[in-house]
Amino acid sequence: MKAEVIVSLKEGVLDPQGKAICHALSSLGYSNVKNANVGKVITLEIEGEDKEKIRKEIEAMCESLLANVVIEDYKIKI
Amino acid sequence: MKAEVIVSLKEGVLDPQGKAICHALSSLGYSNVKNANVGKVITLEIEGEDKEKIRKEIEAMCESLLANVVIEDYKIKI
Repeated sequence: MKAEVIVSLKEGVLDPQGKAICHALSSLGYSNVKNANVGKVITLEIEGEDKEKIRKEIEAMCESLLANVVIEDYKIKI
Repeated sequence: MKAEVIVSLKEGVLDPQGKAICHALSSLGYSNVKNANVGKVITLEIEGEDKEKIRKEIEAMCESLLANVVIEDYKIKI
């Protein structure tokens, strides 16, 4: 089974990567780009059929490894 | 208008980050994780209403800055 975890910075947390992208795009002439935010997308291949059980496992993986829950949020798509 | 760009490694390109995550998860006891791949998700806030025009602009941004098209693929969601 394939699952996707999208990890993004929480609202209000400074995003230097996003700022750098925004600045670079405007210097390339894309002045209509008002803001950019960068996150991670982690695609996992997991053995098992029980979606709910796997969702709970992935939540535990996010809490312990995949996301820094102090400054990041995560969304799980199965 | 908000747009999302998902940048991921092409099939066959080595993904050391993914390998490291897979290894770390199995050492945490999640042995059912068979593979992991890591990509970027870039959320852009762009001025404008014409979706097709903006999609073309974002494609140009990907080709020139947001993705390394030699080893990465990108998907645009508007």
